[in-house]
Amino acid sequence: MFADKGELSPIYRAVAEALIERIDDGDLRPGSRCPSERQLASEYGISRMTARAAVNLLVQRGYVARKNGSGTFVASPKIELDLSTVAGFSDRVLRHGIVPGARVIEARTVSNEELDASVATALEITGEELVHVLVRVRTGNNELLALERSYFPARHCPDLLDNELTGSIYELLQTRCNLELAHLRQKLEVTQLDASAAEALATHPDAPALRITRTTWDAHGRPIEFARDLYRGDRLLFVTEAPAS
Amino acid sequence: MFADKGELSPIYRAVAEALIERIDDGDLRPGSRCPSERQLASEYGISRMTARAAVNLLVQRGYVARKNGSGTFVASPKIELDLSTVAGFSDRVLRHGIVPGARVIEARTVSNEELDASVATALEITGEELVHVLVRVRTGNNELLALERSYFPARHCPDLLDNELTGSIYELLQTRCNLELAHLRQKLEVTQLDASAAEALATHPDAPALRITRTTWDAHGRPIEFARDLYRGDRLLFVTEAPAS
Repeated sequence: MFADKGELSPIYRAVAEALIERIDDGDLRPGSRCPSERQLASEYGISRMTARAAVNLLVQRGYVARKNGSGTFVASPKIELDLSTVAGFSDRVLRHGIVPGARVIEARTVSNEELDASVATALEITGEELVHVLVRVRTGNNELLALERSYFPARHCPDLLDNELTGSIYELLQTRCNLELAHLRQKLEVTQLDASAAEALATHPDAPALRITRTTWDAHGRPIEFARDLYRGDRLLFVTEAPAS
Repeated sequence: MFADKGELSPIYRAVAEALIERIDDGDLRPGSRCPSERQLASEYGISRMTARAAVNLLVQRGYVARKNGSGTFVASPKIELDLSTVAGFSDRVLRHGIVPGARVIEARTVSNEELDASVATALEITGEELVHVLVRVRTGNNELLALERSYFPARHCPDLLDNELTGSIYELLQTRCNLELAHLRQKLEVTQLDASAAEALATHPDAPALRITRTTWDAHGRPIEFARDLYRGDRLLFVTEAPAS
């Protein structure tokens, strides 16, 4: 049914899965050097080409990372984001002692007619109205983790984009514009980074990713933000609790 | 930094992304035939090989599906699972009018010493104790959607596995064993199906997937279930709300 399985032996998969088990068990620790292709070839009785394919699969899935010139290392544990509270990226990573940051890619105010119809629908905009568009790469301890594309109806917070935009926008909405964010709905899809997102996050196209489409409402039930975010699946994991903690 | 990008031109990505937009916009509708490689080649001015690579990417991401002998079709919309309530797979798909089902792969009661240590830790088992192990493929309208591997401390519901196991286990726990499931924590990771999961779900290894590791507690704070599930990322999307609806 599926073409394009490639010509490599499925042995490389079995070896990759054995290595993932060793990482999960703590036998191979974060930061330690991954066994070389030569070692793997000898240890598992496979060709170097098969060993390379196994390591490539581990890189693709975020278990190991290549460092230029110095080899392959077991990756740091994934950073946890709790999705079950009304909070933004900054608060979510701060809870785990990670320093949040943002690099602004785009910040401008446009007429909603310049945006695709789904934005106006989500933000319940009927006539012509100004919308703030904010595109940021989000970082944790300086590592590039997510690409956020957010839309805010300008009338609720006209001067939003005049602020320093490298921290929590939810905090700005609350402190500068007295908006009380009360409810949030997120749609999660497993995907892969497209070419431009991969470039923004300095990783490879097709890297595993979670696409989160998010709407946030204030205490009066007005939609305040609509966002389409891409999170690196190889560096993040996500938590939900019910009921929320 | 990343090897193995393949030798195909990145044009195939741009074409795939253009087709995804046409599907999202409703220009190409679910169930309709995907343009053939020849049509794509002529429409976008690309080689048939590039057109084939674009279609393969769409298959991989679940936007289109191949039907043996009859071509390539735009896939049905993904099925939505709400993760923000204390509910199992059956209740979650039923909410959207999808008929849930299950095929039992394994159902047995073992000593916790036969299981890996993380199961005993999650279920707060200290000494030797019996644990029910239940592995099922979950279906929605007969489509294979998820592979669930659940563990239940046997003492809370000794006869659990004597029941018909093709429906909601949460319902059995509640009606047969008077357990009130009150709290649930889920850890979500973007991953790909390993070879055995792909076989169980009759799809290809490396298909995009969401791994959910889940613990469910009863109203007395006792862990009742620990589970490691794999959900097909190409057929499902996930929703969370805060606060939960």
